[in-house]
Amino acid sequence: MFEQLGLIGCGLMGGSFALALKEAGLVRQVVGYSKSERTRERALALGAIDICAETLEQAVEGSDLVLLAVPVAATESSLAAIAPVLAPRALLMDVGSTKCDVVAAARRALGERLSRFVPAHPIAGKESAGIEHADVALYHERQLILTPLPETHPPLVALAAELWSLLGSQVLQMSPERHDAAYASVSHLPHLLAFAAMNAILGQPQADEWLALAGPGFRDFSRIAASDPSVWRDILLANREQVLAQSRHLRAALDTLEATMQAGDASALQALITQASQARAGWRLGGSTPSPSEADPA
Amino acid sequence: MFEQLGLIGCGLMGGSFALALKEAGLVRQVVGYSKSERTRERALALGAIDICAETLEQAVEGSDLVLLAVPVAATESSLAAIAPVLAPRALLMDVGSTKCDVVAAARRALGERLSRFVPAHPIAGKESAGIEHADVALYHERQLILTPLPETHPPLVALAAELWSLLGSQVLQMSPERHDAAYASVSHLPHLLAFAAMNAILGQPQADEWLALAGPGFRDFSRIAASDPSVWRDILLANREQVLAQSRHLRAALDTLEATMQAGDASALQALITQASQARAGWRLGGSTPSPSEADPA
Repeated sequence: MFEQLGLIGCGLMGGSFALALKEAGLVRQVVGYSKSERTRERALALGAIDICAETLEQAVEGSDLVLLAVPVAATESSLAAIAPVLAPRALLMDVGSTKCDVVAAARRALGERLSRFVPAHPIAGKESAGIEHADVALYHERQLILTPLPETHPPLVALAAELWSLLGSQVLQMSPERHDAAYASVSHLPHLLAFAAMNAILGQPQADEWLALAGPGFRDFSRIAASDPSVWRDILLANREQVLAQSRHLRAALDTLEATMQAGDASALQALITQASQARAGWRLGGSTPSPSEADPA
Repeated sequence: MFEQLGLIGCGLMGGSFALALKEAGLVRQVVGYSKSERTRERALALGAIDICAETLEQAVEGSDLVLLAVPVAATESSLAAIAPVLAPRALLMDVGSTKCDVVAAARRALGERLSRFVPAHPIAGKESAGIEHADVALYHERQLILTPLPETHPPLVALAAELWSLLGSQVLQMSPERHDAAYASVSHLPHLLAFAAMNAILGQPQADEWLALAGPGFRDFSRIAASDPSVWRDILLANREQVLAQSRHLRAALDTLEATMQAGDASALQALITQASQARAGWRLGGSTPSPSEADPA
């Protein structure tokens, strides 16, 4: 399917993509670049990449597929470096967790290569980052969101969708704005809350004792608080308006619950918990897709 | 070890206790009472109990071990009904998630049988309640907190500790006040936040679409939102002052994070996330116990 993948960023996301692409027999060779020489060499040793590039340009030149898998904050400078050396027929994708900022950066940086860019966000990850945790099955049975621009060459969107489908992902397509609003609510705010919950405990003198007593509910609730700080710094800043808007909704819902506690209104409190409990009990991971009327035309 | 367990409440917690006690060979027979006839009969059919009691008193009479496993709000009326028929040498325990209110109820209800009561809280559970989900291994490798009163007959505390240890639990002892403060921070507030997070999403018109796009991070973060509404109504009301105090700490930690986002202060935001991330990455379930200097004398 592809002659050469140019992989920019050889961490968890990029390394897992390269491993999956190779296992599926979809690429002849992978040239990988990472700012960190150690990461590049680990990626080579793990078989995620076949050739270590010394520069970003080396990885892009001659590649018919380029995946940008760097922290969101490094996206624009990376795209600017890619643009002059990207082959005219190449497919360029990213894996960023926010999309409006990536699209804006692409508009500023890619020039006439803008039409080759298909922004992508795999709904997959681990709280442990790094090439050491790369996993050939990371994208298997996970959702993958494409947010093409009006300028994107349409056959490239179809090619990107086919590629991710062959890796086992369920491919959806929507606008960057809808993407960022959705993930502010179901991913970015939950991360912010998990960070805040940990910090709230750590700020009290009994923190060590309390954490030693925490059980399985805390384990699952707080798992995402262990996420990579630089990745999440970038996501929370890139999507800050939407995240802050979701935080206001959360605080209002919390106010409502707490008012029933303050008032000792057991039946109102139970009704609010029942609403949450029934919705969560009926939810399934990747269990449904937006209905056609809600989704953008693909 | 025991001749007869009188089980008051045959749901997930009580049913799992009876199954574990029988499997460990620690009891000759189990007499079970549940307000719901259907629950009693399911418990009998599943082998959790040997005899269905028609009344609470029937289950208590002649039992040398009584476990109260009813919703926290039903504790006081149940204790008042148990008191007149409890054998003078019996061990009485509960499994409630809050302890100050249980101890206060016991003081009001138990009279001269107060010395037989050892309040207990197993740090175990599932988001799915009911005898159908009873699990012989529910208490295995889980913490179990005892919060005896000054009036509790000391040998009963040792007996309770031995019993739970034989079921595979790690037994800790502390005051009801310390227990309720700890679990407000690492259990009750996380549940309240998970309920609020679900309700905040459900209150927005895009709820269905957003929930359909949610990934593994949301799955784990929100799992406890599916918890039993009546159980959690009672817990949040019983421990409301501590939970509201923890919510104030959470809101302050959230304010601090959001202020760095508003200011676009990437390094301050990263430092706050790093604090949370490192603490959570280093945390292990049941991995440590309060140091002797922090724990009450056992």
